[in-house]
Amino acid sequence: LQYSIAVIPGDGIGPEVMDEGLKVLTAVEEAHGGIRFTREIMDWNCQYYLTNGRMMPENGLDILKDHDLILLGAIGAPEVPDHVSVWELILPIRRSFSQYVNLRPVKLLKGLESPLRYKSHADLDFVVVRENTEGEYSNMGGRMHQGTPYEMAVQNNVFTRYGTERILRYAYALAEKRPTKSVTAATKSNGINHSMPFWDEIVKEISLEHPDVRTNLYHIDALAAYFITRPETFEVVVASNLFGDILTDLGAAIVGGLGLAPSANINPERQYPSMFEPIHGSAPDIAGKGIANPIAQVWSLSMMMDHLDLPEISALIMNAIEQVVQEGKVLTPDLGGKATTRELGDEIVRHIYLG
Amino acid sequence: LQYSIAVIPGDGIGPEVMDEGLKVLTAVEEAHGGIRFTREIMDWNCQYYLTNGRMMPENGLDILKDHDLILLGAIGAPEVPDHVSVWELILPIRRSFSQYVNLRPVKLLKGLESPLRYKSHADLDFVVVRENTEGEYSNMGGRMHQGTPYEMAVQNNVFTRYGTERILRYAYALAEKRPTKSVTAATKSNGINHSMPFWDEIVKEISLEHPDVRTNLYHIDALAAYFITRPETFEVVVASNLFGDILTDLGAAIVGGLGLAPSANINPERQYPSMFEPIHGSAPDIAGKGIANPIAQVWSLSMMMDHLDLPEISALIMNAIEQVVQEGKVLTPDLGGKATTRELGDEIVRHIYLG
Ligand SMILES: CC(C)[C@H](C(=O)O)[C@@H](O)C(=O)O
Ligand SMILES: CC(C)[C@H](C(=O)O)[C@@H](O)C(=O)O
Repeated sequence: LQYSIAVIPGDGIGPEVMDEGLKVLTAVEEAHGGIRFTREIMDWNCQYYLTNGRMMPENGLDILKDHDLILLGAIGAPEVPDHVSVWELILPIRRSFSQYVNLRPVKLLKGLESPLRYKSHADLDFVVVRENTEGEYSNMGGRMHQGTPYEMAVQNNVFTRYGTERILRYAYALAEKRPTKSVTAATKSNGINHSMPFWDEIVKEISLEHPDVRTNLYHIDALAAYFITRPETFEVVVASNLFGDILTDLGAAIVGGLGLAPSANINPERQYPSMFEPIHGSAPDIAGKGIANPIAQVWSLSMMMDHLDLPEISALIMNAIEQVVQEGKVLTPDLGGKATTRELGDEIVRHIYLG
Repeated sequence: LQYSIAVIPGDGIGPEVMDEGLKVLTAVEEAHGGIRFTREIMDWNCQYYLTNGRMMPENGLDILKDHDLILLGAIGAPEVPDHVSVWELILPIRRSFSQYVNLRPVKLLKGLESPLRYKSHADLDFVVVRENTEGEYSNMGGRMHQGTPYEMAVQNNVFTRYGTERILRYAYALAEKRPTKSVTAATKSNGINHSMPFWDEIVKEISLEHPDVRTNLYHIDALAAYFITRPETFEVVVASNLFGDILTDLGAAIVGGLGLAPSANINPERQYPSMFEPIHGSAPDIAGKGIANPIAQVWSLSMMMDHLDLPEISALIMNAIEQVVQEGKVLTPDLGGKATTRELGDEIVRHIYLG
């Protein structure tokens, strides 16, 4: 078995955590004789932008398309506006490759404490399915009357039946495989009166295709509050692009922080490469200090293995992470420890060899 | 002094908590000889809609305009779609009366425990200034290709310079009066590339008008996470309509729940009546049981007194609430007690007479 990975370390702590991710990948190859991951490292980041005036080469997407998988660190630097760095790299990848599922587990690892007083790892274990190609992140819109008191900006949220059905179908199919078969869908149809009632209608339709799955539809404001008050009631949460984005950062916060939160940008039909990345950004404030937590990046590799239908390898990586966390001896500062990024990465690698 | 209040108890638990609010108002009048609040009760709610085909009479807004203040309970019933009940009552009021400031304190009362493990009332005391008239809640948009696979819905987010400047100016002016003079603004300019960069620019401009105020601009996803991890760093948080909505439900969750969270819909220029309401909805699941927490409703009266520049009366009400909560003997089930809505209301009234 051989897979080719396009590796985009990116900016800030991106390359730091990516180093550890790649070490883990090597350990996995060595632990598992029969499998190879070739890597092509791309230097596409904000520095590249400052030099070349673009975030990636003109044929960047073509280059990526020749790979089976994409592994991303983090993108963003103070010198480049986010809506440039993101809109010229991450978002085009998600969209051109129809990575319409952004899968984000919210899972408290054993040994870690949730900031929520009465919640333990038994209460915090669900997954958010975030729509990843349309909705509130559309580049449709613009400005008028610039430089006058009447200036205004309009942004169009675009929800298609096609895009909405496919993300909901994915969520319901996932829930079918879970113990309680429950889908929680985020809406805001009381305040947002065109797109969200449309979303609700399609939730209704798809739910009828899955009579054995229980559906809860909550307004995003209430749902955000429920993440705090009753996270144990969720199994599969499905949300639009923006709502999913907000819920997953919140999800990361309640399970110990962004340093731990992975994500998979999946093209379920496997026509295009899928992309695996931490939820966290490039964190310029701690970049260069060697203290970033590499777990989110390593965890994203475990999600990659799931995507490749290699459950034993996925479990090998997850177990290594869980053991290191539970032993609690080698942790980065965000988890209350004193270890460096590299030390934590090495410890995970050591546990992979241990099996 | 005499003020006339239009009272809209609404649906579900709305009338139940409103009863207690009105009792408190009477107590305040009796405790403070010189002040009178006349009340006109409006039966505008979902029942009214089912009978009359509209949420309020055709001249409803004119009727309201003749009052100094509006007191709302909660609107919404299972039989009427939210986007009808809300868009024909609450939102028209907020908009027609230029109640562009939605002020929502996030404050943990002494005696209550936050669901956040390491946070106490000293950590949880800030205010969210939510834009209340435009942004993501615009009724501009629609659908195309209904009934085909190509069906789509578009919703326009509309941000005007006028609307954005005025909410930011209000937030900065408020921060000027606070100890640390800090404004935290929510954005999402990395993902939402027209309206949010515009918002960021205006934040920049208004911040320059207030060189002594410190500004932090965070993406809404990160900010939601910070509400969990470091709420003690906030003083005045300012956000668009949708982001403010989400943040304030989250804020309510971290200070003990929606039963405690008040809000003021303010027209700062006082050309029109302002409206005071709990953040919670009509809660059909507990309606009729007499167990709803009336504190949010009563607290909204305290905000009303602030708006009327009656700080001693505002404090009288707040002190009564705080004493009842701190004594902890008469609390509704959401706060771990066994009291009914009425018993808790009576207890607050008793403390008002005690002074
Ligand atoms: C009823 C609904 C439209 C409303 C809103 O989102 O504004 C409510 O959630 C609130 O926060 O006042
Ligand atoms: C960088 C940004 C646009 C991105 C998003 O909002 O999608 C990030 O927050 C994420 O969640 O992957």
